[in-house]
Amino acid sequence: MIAPLKSVESPDDLATTLGAMGRGARQALHTLALATSAQKNAVLFGMANELRAASAAILIANAEDLAEARHSRATPAFLDRLALDERRIAAMADGVEAVAGLPDPIGTVINAWTRPNGLRIERVRVPLGVIGVIYESRPNVTADAAALCLKAGNAVILRGGSESFSSTRAIHAAILKALRAGGLAEAAIQLVPTRSRDAVGLMLTGLGGSIDVIVPRGGKGLVGRVQAEARIPVFAHLEGVCHVYVAAGANLDMARQIVLNAKMRRTGVCGAAETLLVDRCVAAAQLGPLVTMLIEAGCEVRGDDATQQVDPRVKAASEDDWSAEYLDAVIAVKVIEGVEEAISHIERYGSHHTDAIVTNDNAIAEKFLTEIDSAIVLHNASTQFADGGEFGFGAEIGIATGRLHARGPVGVEQLTSFKYRVRGSGQTRP
Amino acid sequence: MIAPLKSVESPDDLATTLGAMGRGARQALHTLALATSAQKNAVLFGMANELRAASAAILIANAEDLAEARHSRATPAFLDRLALDERRIAAMADGVEAVAGLPDPIGTVINAWTRPNGLRIERVRVPLGVIGVIYESRPNVTADAAALCLKAGNAVILRGGSESFSSTRAIHAAILKALRAGGLAEAAIQLVPTRSRDAVGLMLTGLGGSIDVIVPRGGKGLVGRVQAEARIPVFAHLEGVCHVYVAAGANLDMARQIVLNAKMRRTGVCGAAETLLVDRCVAAAQLGPLVTMLIEAGCEVRGDDATQQVDPRVKAASEDDWSAEYLDAVIAVKVIEGVEEAISHIERYGSHHTDAIVTNDNAIAEKFLTEIDSAIVLHNASTQFADGGEFGFGAEIGIATGRLHARGPVGVEQLTSFKYRVRGSGQTRP
Repeated sequence: MIAPLKSVESPDDLATTLGAMGRGARQALHTLALATSAQKNAVLFGMANELRAASAAILIANAEDLAEARHSRATPAFLDRLALDERRIAAMADGVEAVAGLPDPIGTVINAWTRPNGLRIERVRVPLGVIGVIYESRPNVTADAAALCLKAGNAVILRGGSESFSSTRAIHAAILKALRAGGLAEAAIQLVPTRSRDAVGLMLTGLGGSIDVIVPRGGKGLVGRVQAEARIPVFAHLEGVCHVYVAAGANLDMARQIVLNAKMRRTGVCGAAETLLVDRCVAAAQLGPLVTMLIEAGCEVRGDDATQQVDPRVKAASEDDWSAEYLDAVIAVKVIEGVEEAISHIERYGSHHTDAIVTNDNAIAEKFLTEIDSAIVLHNASTQFADGGEFGFGAEIGIATGRLHARGPVGVEQLTSFKYRVRGSGQTRP
Repeated sequence: MIAPLKSVESPDDLATTLGAMGRGARQALHTLALATSAQKNAVLFGMANELRAASAAILIANAEDLAEARHSRATPAFLDRLALDERRIAAMADGVEAVAGLPDPIGTVINAWTRPNGLRIERVRVPLGVIGVIYESRPNVTADAAALCLKAGNAVILRGGSESFSSTRAIHAAILKALRAGGLAEAAIQLVPTRSRDAVGLMLTGLGGSIDVIVPRGGKGLVGRVQAEARIPVFAHLEGVCHVYVAAGANLDMARQIVLNAKMRRTGVCGAAETLLVDRCVAAAQLGPLVTMLIEAGCEVRGDDATQQVDPRVKAASEDDWSAEYLDAVIAVKVIEGVEEAISHIERYGSHHTDAIVTNDNAIAEKFLTEIDSAIVLHNASTQFADGGEFGFGAEIGIATGRLHARGPVGVEQLTSFKYRVRGSGQTRP
């Protein structure tokens, strides 16, 4: 069912192939920018249907990937990310339909004003351009990223993990059917047709000006390589070293619920808490119960001296623990002296991702919300709300930790740019 | 009056000096982000006053620069950009005061919404970070860029043209006095203390993560080098190959006024028109009068065959003329067949900066406004309105032709980022 893989053998062949993909994506942009919401949504619903219809083919391809991964002794966590089943394919299709249901940002007037000379100026949303998405072996990213980019009128060049290559191709084949049926250029959603890691290096050069921005989705290794090597802009998705600060005026029951949820609901997501800061003035009453609760929930606690004293099962934290992203049932715990120290600790060791304060003292909370320089700051809520769906964006391509263009959950709206539309009646500049 | 130049001799010294400047700028950010509008405005008014008070010192320094530039046979246009006088210094000070008078974007709630679970989410403007401004020998950019960056709570590292080094240092000395008097860190506005061009290369690496974005201001050579070498994001300010399209349904009088203004008001600005497209269906009546008007206003006309036939003084246009940014009293003129050809011509040869259509046919105008992918598209108005002041932004650091983060006139608001502030009452994620 899936077209045979093009031969992409030598480095020259690869550069030629990717160069042509880049030019194709740019050529597709003009049509994509002008596609109506109805046309884009028809393709998205078509994508969802084709994914459902291709379930068997996708599962066969996935079985090949899984067999190879087992052969090369992949970890259980890796195999879990790679594995698809009927339920996961259905979830992928549902996700694409959810994107179809989102409002179309393109053409929206962001703001408008009239100048004293009568010129009427409008700032209007337009697509961002060609987006390069580089991800690891989660095949479902193929459909998520394709749907989000298409909704915002962008062309996308996808480069999935080499271990999920067959699954990704099967998913992409279903997407292409929907593009053809909907009359949109196939170059709108392209997949790099090779397992070679050299393709990543080429994409990071921008393919001769064809790619506008790179979105890396994956672990530290991938994101670090992309940030270090990219010669074009990157929506940085660095790690989430997220903090919960139980401050003066915290209610113990609320602190318990938020800390447990922030750390243990899912430990492998970037919004999971990695460090608990407990204020000295509530430590006597709350540190013990919070630490015991975490340990009893199966979480390893690594603490400073004060924390080690409340429970013999607490291990000693090293300097590295304060900046660790465990993505596991481990937490670093420290007693600190007031909101100023909490802010400076987070500034020093955090990753500008998501940080929360628990307190019923609004003055302390406002200081924390104002001074913490993270994409998301929360008062009396779990850090695990760091998610495009939870923000009401419908879907996200990731959580950006950079400050340029995109920050926090990157949904459809942040995948757009804008232009100025000016209407006059013969005005000239004096 | 001005502190003696630090010795920055060897490449190692230079890297050490710039590295320390980068760290200083980052350290200044926390205070700058929290500075009140009143505090920032007090420093800006102080800057204006110190610039006026330092007039004599600035003029002496400028005389040194001018003497050296004359010695190395700089062009009259170059000397004009470099030269300061009492009037230009007063204009610089007035410009800084105008920035003080702008609304402070920091802390503004861009939008806010409540989730079904009761979480209240606000998107709040925050400073962008550390901005590196690399410019050529226009000393006034020093004050303009410093004022805009400070207003938005950013730290800035300025690197002016080596030929304006003494003037720039004198202006920066006045700025430092105002920072000290206002109690803000001197590291908020730093000037690279050397003429060495190696400093530019170091800034383009980001100084070990210290610089968030580079803003180049200058000619093609500088901007091209910055775009090619930068390892960090750049607000691209490419050339302005701006078009005026006189379409079907154009009024000849309006076309005359707009074309003359767009080309001849000031020929050296990036919003000046460089190409005139005249639709075949109005060419018989309008091409001759427009060409004659331009020639009589002192503009050289380079035309296609049809244009050469209306006036013997029209020179033959070559392929290069369609993508030329003359920045001079020269224009390329072409007769085209309808709005589709106008759009594809501009897509092929333009620079996505500013393009205008003249017509009383609204359907044609809307097609042009929708399909032209430029930062600014105008209907019945001169391209010379491409300017932050004319847009009501008060001042601008340049006109961005990129699509990421900043586009069009970059005023105070585009020098900001945002974060999400979330207020809950104990919410945890299911």
